[in-house]
Amino acid sequence: MTGWFISLEGIEGAGKTTQTQLLAKWLSKQGYDVLITHEPGGTPLGQSLRTLLLQHTLPQRTELLLYAADRATHVAEVLQPALQSNKIILCDRYTDSTVAYQGYGRGLSLTLIDQVNALATGGLTPDLTLWLDVPVPIGLARAKKRGVLDQMERESLAFHERVRSGYQHLTTQYPERLVRIAGELPVEQVFTQICAAIAARLSRANECQ
Amino acid sequence: MTGWFISLEGIEGAGKTTQTQLLAKWLSKQGYDVLITHEPGGTPLGQSLRTLLLQHTLPQRTELLLYAADRATHVAEVLQPALQSNKIILCDRYTDSTVAYQGYGRGLSLTLIDQVNALATGGLTPDLTLWLDVPVPIGLARAKKRGVLDQMERESLAFHERVRSGYQHLTTQYPERLVRIAGELPVEQVFTQICAAIAARLSRANECQ
Repeated sequence: MTGWFISLEGIEGAGKTTQTQLLAKWLSKQGYDVLITHEPGGTPLGQSLRTLLLQHTLPQRTELLLYAADRATHVAEVLQPALQSNKIILCDRYTDSTVAYQGYGRGLSLTLIDQVNALATGGLTPDLTLWLDVPVPIGLARAKKRGVLDQMERESLAFHERVRSGYQHLTTQYPERLVRIAGELPVEQVFTQICAAIAARLSRANECQ
Repeated sequence: MTGWFISLEGIEGAGKTTQTQLLAKWLSKQGYDVLITHEPGGTPLGQSLRTLLLQHTLPQRTELLLYAADRATHVAEVLQPALQSNKIILCDRYTDSTVAYQGYGRGLSLTLIDQVNALATGGLTPDLTLWLDVPVPIGLARAKKRGVLDQMERESLAFHERVRSGYQHLTTQYPERLVRIAGELPVEQVFTQICAAIAARLSRANECQ
């Protein structure tokens, strides 16, 4: 098989980090070579851009283009090489986050976002996107427990509801790629759903070859 | 009248800085409110991005998106407000530089560049672009005389010839907007051509109202 690209999406406190760790263990045990990464900031440039985004108050269009620059670097320097080395990528947030947060959350043009995403990725799309869906109050309560809330987490409930509805729209739009995982269940039950979604697709991928 | 947007283009050593100074004086004497600015780096973010571009070796697509982020900020924070305040903008380099340098010079896809430019500017196009055209050896000799050559200036002769041909193509593509100025002539004669190009258009603009 060639490499495989899984992105994990969802609002803060959806359980992405926990599930990524479990998933990495499970896949490694089966002999897969796993790479865990994240956006934004998965490259040295990304770290510099994060600092820069904190130092300046920027027009929304600029912010979108800076995140795109970070993504373009991540694609070229991390994701593409990993796929070429037959790795399974577990990526915390990717293009759907931009659609959900900047588009549905902040109201930026979805057409503009699709164009910027296409430019940034050069067309690289995940093979599978796991949307860890939790009701907003549950997610935010979990995030709060974890410690300091970042800027996104401090947004209003209504904002996070819009983000969640964004993921819902995306799942309807790309039913082949996006799988909704009921993220409010206990950790093991969430993981069972994820394993089922992956097993179905990875075995299918094997059969195709 | 409303504001007016003039961009100045050309290879290094074409005389953009000298002519901008003369032009600003001439326009100010006629009572116009003139703003001199430049890309990249015409905003505080632009300065940070410049530093960042020097620190990292980046994929071409990333570089393109970072310059676009700089441009988007420049448009929103400098150019649009200036136009709304009825100023005449003299901008050293704008979208045509990206086409000429990254497109014709480095061979990046012109379609990609047009898309990124459109995203960055939100459609803001100069009313007039002055292409100061000088033969490459003359331009480079002038730039060398001025002191240290920057990265672009250290490129090969062939690269600068491609950039120049890029400007030539743009002038053919947008004959209404781009005016070729014979930049190898003495300073005063170059300036006379520029004044003629502007007078024709500014008076036409006045007549239109």
